[in-house]
Amino acid sequence: MSSFETIAVDIDGGILTLTLNRPDRLNAFNRAMMAEVIAALDIADADDAVRAVIVTGAGRAFCAGADLGAGGATFDYGEGSRWSDAGSPVRSDGSVDYDHEGVRDGGGLVSLRIFNCRKPVIGAINGAAVGIGVTMTLPMDIRLTSEDARFGFVFARRGIVPEAASSWFLPRLVGMPQALRWCYSGRIFDAAEALAGGLVSAVHPGDALLPAARALAHELTDESAPVSVALTRQMLWRMAGAAHPIEAHRLDSRLVWARGSSADAREGIGSFLEKRAAHFPDRVSTDTPHFARWMDDPDYA
Amino acid sequence: MSSFETIAVDIDGGILTLTLNRPDRLNAFNRAMMAEVIAALDIADADDAVRAVIVTGAGRAFCAGADLGAGGATFDYGEGSRWSDAGSPVRSDGSVDYDHEGVRDGGGLVSLRIFNCRKPVIGAINGAAVGIGVTMTLPMDIRLTSEDARFGFVFARRGIVPEAASSWFLPRLVGMPQALRWCYSGRIFDAAEALAGGLVSAVHPGDALLPAARALAHELTDESAPVSVALTRQMLWRMAGAAHPIEAHRLDSRLVWARGSSADAREGIGSFLEKRAAHFPDRVSTDTPHFARWMDDPDYA
Amino acid sequence: MSSFETIAVDIDGGILTLTLNRPDRLNAFNRAMMAEVIAALDIADADDAVRAVIVTGAGRAFCAGADLGAGGATFDYGEGSRWSDAGSPVRSDGSVDYDHEGVRDGGGLVSLRIFNCRKPVIGAINGAAVGIGVTMTLPMDIRLTSEDARFGFVFARRGIVPEAASSWFLPRLVGMPQALRWCYSGRIFDAAEALAGGLVSAVHPGDALLPAARALAHELTDESAPVSVALTRQMLWRMAGAAHPIEAHRLDSRLVWARGSSADAREGIGSFLEKRAAHFPDRVSTDTPHFARWMDDPDYA
Repeated sequence: MSSFETIAVDIDGGILTLTLNRPDRLNAFNRAMMAEVIAALDIADADDAVRAVIVTGAGRAFCAGADLGAGGATFDYGEGSRWSDAGSPVRSDGSVDYDHEGVRDGGGLVSLRIFNCRKPVIGAINGAAVGIGVTMTLPMDIRLTSEDARFGFVFARRGIVPEAASSWFLPRLVGMPQALRWCYSGRIFDAAEALAGGLVSAVHPGDALLPAARALAHELTDESAPVSVALTRQMLWRMAGAAHPIEAHRLDSRLVWARGSSADAREGIGSFLEKRAAHFPDRVSTDTPHFARWMDDPDYA
Repeated sequence: MSSFETIAVDIDGGILTLTLNRPDRLNAFNRAMMAEVIAALDIADADDAVRAVIVTGAGRAFCAGADLGAGGATFDYGEGSRWSDAGSPVRSDGSVDYDHEGVRDGGGLVSLRIFNCRKPVIGAINGAAVGIGVTMTLPMDIRLTSEDARFGFVFARRGIVPEAASSWFLPRLVGMPQALRWCYSGRIFDAAEALAGGLVSAVHPGDALLPAARALAHELTDESAPVSVALTRQMLWRMAGAAHPIEAHRLDSRLVWARGSSADAREGIGSFLEKRAAHFPDRVSTDTPHFARWMDDPDYA
Repeated sequence: MSSFETIAVDIDGGILTLTLNRPDRLNAFNRAMMAEVIAALDIADADDAVRAVIVTGAGRAFCAGADLGAGGATFDYGEGSRWSDAGSPVRSDGSVDYDHEGVRDGGGLVSLRIFNCRKPVIGAINGAAVGIGVTMTLPMDIRLTSEDARFGFVFARRGIVPEAASSWFLPRLVGMPQALRWCYSGRIFDAAEALAGGLVSAVHPGDALLPAARALAHELTDESAPVSVALTRQMLWRMAGAAHPIEAHRLDSRLVWARGSSADAREGIGSFLEKRAAHFPDRVSTDTPHFARWMDDPDYA
């Protein structure tokens, strides 16, 4: 775990805590952090001892946004590809091939990785969450925040646009009028406004934030079958954009069939009828059914 | 009407009241109930005297979930098909053909039948609504509940997954953070939490629940044209998943054209201009235009 | 500007105010108003001095609905096409060609034009907003209202159906139970109910409505880059119906790339680092990237 440079990862009591860890830079996001957040979530998904993920920040900020160390050229990817090793999408005549693999927003790669996660992901927003610092939290399942956190969808004030697939996530979370209002103005707002607007689920005093996040992680997972939780996460997120409930019916019919004959189902029903705690034997790494096409779809990675 | 075994059906004053009626089993859901709920909604749709549907439960529960009479094997459909007469989806080599018609979740068949209903459907949740007992209410238009009702999306505690197409319905109704929180934990919660979370629209004392549901049914239908109500129901539910408002424009352009020349439109405008009550002559069974492809689509049945 | 007959248009301080202006008819909607609202939005989009649009009504109403001057035949388009110059969709044998260009709901053409707008659109609902008077406000970004405004989705009481693509917009804005309840009953309701139901964002005393709308327009645009605002508007509205966040990722990756090298981005980051006000040089009319297919898609016009 100590091999990370921009984040810290701790696994304890079934919870992987991912701490954005560049406190001298207010945990500003850069390419190394992008790669390490994705790597940490790969660990979370692969480790059956991890039941939930908490994402927080070291020091007084959560994440102050993209690292502006390059100044006005920060978002000018020029001839090279900032976020990819796929080579340059700039053609020899200077035009840009927008279908090139190199044209991939780094925040979006993090968002899609969180979207694909098999464990519940809780945001514990301990301070400033601005730009990519707030949009990266939108694919998390639940966001808690400290009283002194600050938020800003500041893209329009920087001359760019909302990224990290936030145009898909934010209106679904807070409604279109609120989403547009925050994104047009780029204004910084406080935790009370974030709560009133539906961006976060609860506000806590700073020293109570991580304990609250841990208690929530236990609420979500302590009495539930891990494979059920992993499938539930994907079912709800994937069906959020489906055109018709028949798509959910096709999916859940298969999953109820597949899981209905599992050892987990026998234990879940048996423990309920016997009024005792359940001990689910199945494991996410080995017992998650994979017949749903999207579960291994590289287009969605 | 007396031919039903697991439900009771009453038609009075334009309202079909469908009562889940296995009170000694807390109205637990089984295959017979699935078929009878669908049959009762077929009656509601075919009978022009029925303007609205109320679904409630007999005794102290609304529906306590799937009947666990088979114990740990309840959801183990094994070699047979629990919910279908289409034969077994299990191939001779023991593998499962997940595209087989027999792999259809019974709760989903009820949900899709409610989704397709031509009359407003009101849930009057009089007591425990757990598992399929709560997911079957999600395609209803409005849910009212009694003070002592209890709710639970308990699937992850039983080792299975949310069914009845609830992964499509629930996040749209209560938002993703709340939907995931209830589905991950499988926790039982009360009417106040259901109201605060957006799952139900109002909480009533137990003896005021059915009167409130009936008053609501009258509010929804007393002054409205039956064909307009039927089309409105389908338009709003169908467009909830549409990619772009152009789809709604294509649909409502045709429907305004078709209904604009109807006797109902002449009566609706005439009664408004004359400041008198309207008496709409058109009937759902005979005057509902059918050029929208989905209206008779067997895939969506 | 004085060439309009049914609306008034004023441009002042970066805000185009579009006033529905048939006060003797309670600003009832007719074909001329449809064409003029669309023309006014074309002006707003083409004029770089316009940063935001406010839509309000002259006199005591916002818009009382379709002009019922034709009485019971108002919505009976008969052999001609009410809203189109494309000729009649009625075939020689009397049947209707529903794919004909002439079958286009006029309210929907207004809604789609607002949906496609490049400037923020604020509804300042100063009085009765009924029928098309309220559905035309749904594609606006934010709705403010005066205390004495009244609302009604009255279509089912007139024997027709919700139009102007409202079946797509309304459930996304207020949730399905509230949307169905208002549309089934056709009941008139007041500003407090509109606020509680999520239809409007704030209620103001009548004489404070336009000042509040203007203050909001400035909040949305004063410190933001115009091109960023235009793209943000389209990104959020377009992705509201997208099936998967990968669609937003593909779109925003290209837009961040394209705008990241802009003069606006250099100015946005530079002004932030220098803690000074930004002066964005780029213009919506000339500097908005057009590689997103939908931006010029005639199907969506």
